[in-house]
Amino acid sequence: MYIYINEASHHLGDEVEIRGWLYNKRSSGKLHFLILRDGTGLMQAVVSKKEVSEEAFETSGNLTQECSLIVTGKVSEEPRSPGGYELHVTDVKLVGKSEDYPITPKEHGIEFLLDHRHLWLRSKRQHAILKVRAETAAAMREYLNSRGFVNLDTPIFTPNACEGTSDLFETEYFGGSAYLAQSGQLYSEAAIMSFGKVYCFGPTFRSEKSKTRRHLTEFWMLEPEVAWLDLDGCMDLEEDFIVEVVARVLDRCAEELKVLGRDTSVLEKVQKPFPRITYDRAAEILKEKGADFTYGTDFGGADETILGESFDRPVFIHHWPADIKAFYMKRDPNDYSKALAVDLLASEGHGELIGGSQREDDLDELLKRLKEHDLPQKYFEWYLDLRRYGSVPHSGFGLGFERTVGWICGTPHIRETILFPRLMHRLEP
Amino acid sequence: MYIYINEASHHLGDEVEIRGWLYNKRSSGKLHFLILRDGTGLMQAVVSKKEVSEEAFETSGNLTQECSLIVTGKVSEEPRSPGGYELHVTDVKLVGKSEDYPITPKEHGIEFLLDHRHLWLRSKRQHAILKVRAETAAAMREYLNSRGFVNLDTPIFTPNACEGTSDLFETEYFGGSAYLAQSGQLYSEAAIMSFGKVYCFGPTFRSEKSKTRRHLTEFWMLEPEVAWLDLDGCMDLEEDFIVEVVARVLDRCAEELKVLGRDTSVLEKVQKPFPRITYDRAAEILKEKGADFTYGTDFGGADETILGESFDRPVFIHHWPADIKAFYMKRDPNDYSKALAVDLLASEGHGELIGGSQREDDLDELLKRLKEHDLPQKYFEWYLDLRRYGSVPHSGFGLGFERTVGWICGTPHIRETILFPRLMHRLEP
Repeated sequence: MYIYINEASHHLGDEVEIRGWLYNKRSSGKLHFLILRDGTGLMQAVVSKKEVSEEAFETSGNLTQECSLIVTGKVSEEPRSPGGYELHVTDVKLVGKSEDYPITPKEHGIEFLLDHRHLWLRSKRQHAILKVRAETAAAMREYLNSRGFVNLDTPIFTPNACEGTSDLFETEYFGGSAYLAQSGQLYSEAAIMSFGKVYCFGPTFRSEKSKTRRHLTEFWMLEPEVAWLDLDGCMDLEEDFIVEVVARVLDRCAEELKVLGRDTSVLEKVQKPFPRITYDRAAEILKEKGADFTYGTDFGGADETILGESFDRPVFIHHWPADIKAFYMKRDPNDYSKALAVDLLASEGHGELIGGSQREDDLDELLKRLKEHDLPQKYFEWYLDLRRYGSVPHSGFGLGFERTVGWICGTPHIRETILFPRLMHRLEP
Repeated sequence: MYIYINEASHHLGDEVEIRGWLYNKRSSGKLHFLILRDGTGLMQAVVSKKEVSEEAFETSGNLTQECSLIVTGKVSEEPRSPGGYELHVTDVKLVGKSEDYPITPKEHGIEFLLDHRHLWLRSKRQHAILKVRAETAAAMREYLNSRGFVNLDTPIFTPNACEGTSDLFETEYFGGSAYLAQSGQLYSEAAIMSFGKVYCFGPTFRSEKSKTRRHLTEFWMLEPEVAWLDLDGCMDLEEDFIVEVVARVLDRCAEELKVLGRDTSVLEKVQKPFPRITYDRAAEILKEKGADFTYGTDFGGADETILGESFDRPVFIHHWPADIKAFYMKRDPNDYSKALAVDLLASEGHGELIGGSQREDDLDELLKRLKEHDLPQKYFEWYLDLRRYGSVPHSGFGLGFERTVGWICGTPHIRETILFPRLMHRLEP
């Protein structure tokens, strides 16, 4: 019977078949100890010369790293085996050989590993990070689905830019041009007028000439949008969301976080309430800590690190200078110079996880904003219609998915948090 | 207390607040009957002149289609109200006016509706279709997640094409070129060597100069890939998957399917086993039914319709002429002229839902295929590595998500199954 390694506990004493790859091997005369991996876990298989055919024993002796094989044997408990179960082998079949596998236990440079991403994926660490990614995505989707958010996919091809046209990838479109979306927000704003609460979760694209460890040219973004929600409500939602998602990943990815050597006490501190400070207060903190920061500008990576490290859990920074924020953000009615915007910074200097805001819902104000930002009104007529026909207060946020996974995993560079990272100088494999 | 309309049953007799939009209105002297919608449902609100302030009564009388409003009142049962509950209004506040809403109960042409997609979304039918879309996506993800498939996102930017370079969108990439992916399959093949079972689910792009009702330039595709799976196993998986997804949507979207007037008896017939016929047999059927079809070519839309209508449930067509199939498909060892490929056609002429195959796992065969297809080996070295280091038999499939939603909803044109459709001549709104 063919089983997966993570099903071994249900098959104690059974003769089963494991199909997988050779992760490791050691031999001592009449015994070969094979460590198998099949995607669901690792398992030791013991090949004893007196219990298998001569051919099977010889095959076992010649197995090389990352060859594929089918091993038959009896399952027993063995605390010293990874996973706690061991296979007493009755037969071994080599399926696909593997000669001179490029990635060896020695150290490799990062460019070499990225060039061999298709194989690097098999390493324990990369396997763990991407399992955390998948669990985090499922946790996020299920949080929203169970609360009545309707998952809708916003378009990638757009005729114009959400926040101006810099850093956009352009593609030929049947004789014209299209730009690859950097956000689905404007489209989701249309959708909430039909559905109340929606989210999109898909790839977004930025042609930034940036090589920092926090940037990819192609990354995934989760963007919920909610009708009848104000800025405070938006912070409440983000907080509840992050707390629940982190708790679920802690619960279900304990093994992976252990492989990654993640200090989980940091994640256990991700509890309500998150501190909520104004931009003005954040600027004071930066000044107090001697940062090279000019009031009225956006935070740089170093500033985000200082601010993030000032708290033991993620911190909200709200009420930003309107001048440096996007045209669609609503102004604070009590201080017209400020936008009802909020960023959520991760702990430990992992930077901005989420950017959110209450959206401008007044037609005349929005028209003013478009003019101030030099955006052509004709491209936004449909968006303006949302303020002409039954406008409502509403808010939403965009979460950088790879940054969030990187923070949960404690990885310094987000290039490891996506299957095949796309960087300024990397389009392959 | 602010509640959603679909929570009304829990608030019988309570005074609640509903926030939404005016869907419809009729008046009879001292009574206004407002039909509200808030994204979760429709509800009738009765405004009686003697129970509200003069101002609130006048406001109610002046409400126009699609204005946004907050209505306070007491919940009571009322079988004649949509949803079965009614609000006895104590107050009405207009939030956002709506003058001359462009979409009226009269008939509009399809181009007008597509031009106003941002508002058209609010119509009952579009709301229902997109709710089915969201439920279908959730059902698909949860089917796979609960069976150990790891959800990984394959890249959109690719340096080369999966099946040749026709119909690809090209974008400038830091001085070079990138192409927008039409499939994540090749990347998922690398991932299964680490994870065993994976899937990707994201947008894909085809620059086809096609204006049929089955084509979009941007559409979503779900692509599971499984190590150690052969063609028969792949058909078993597709069958089980489709049966369970359709059953869940039937169960959870009964209301929406009713709005759409969907003949659900057709969907209830989606039960195992699906017929499995060879390409050769399919060609015979087409001949018997007098189709204008040449043996050895791919089926056209009309052929797919004839074949789909020949069975009362989806039908598998397997063992295709290798010449017209992709380079990565494995040949039938018993008939080298055939590829181990399988298409799943929907019932009722909705066309191809799924294309799948067992993949070529032999290095030398794959090298031959690349040559035959005139594909440059150097771009595929990483893909060839998967056959050099622990190759395993494996299979997978790609499901066209909008076509599947269109089939479930019974919509003739898939442009209604995505939030903002992108067509050859449509990039807006």
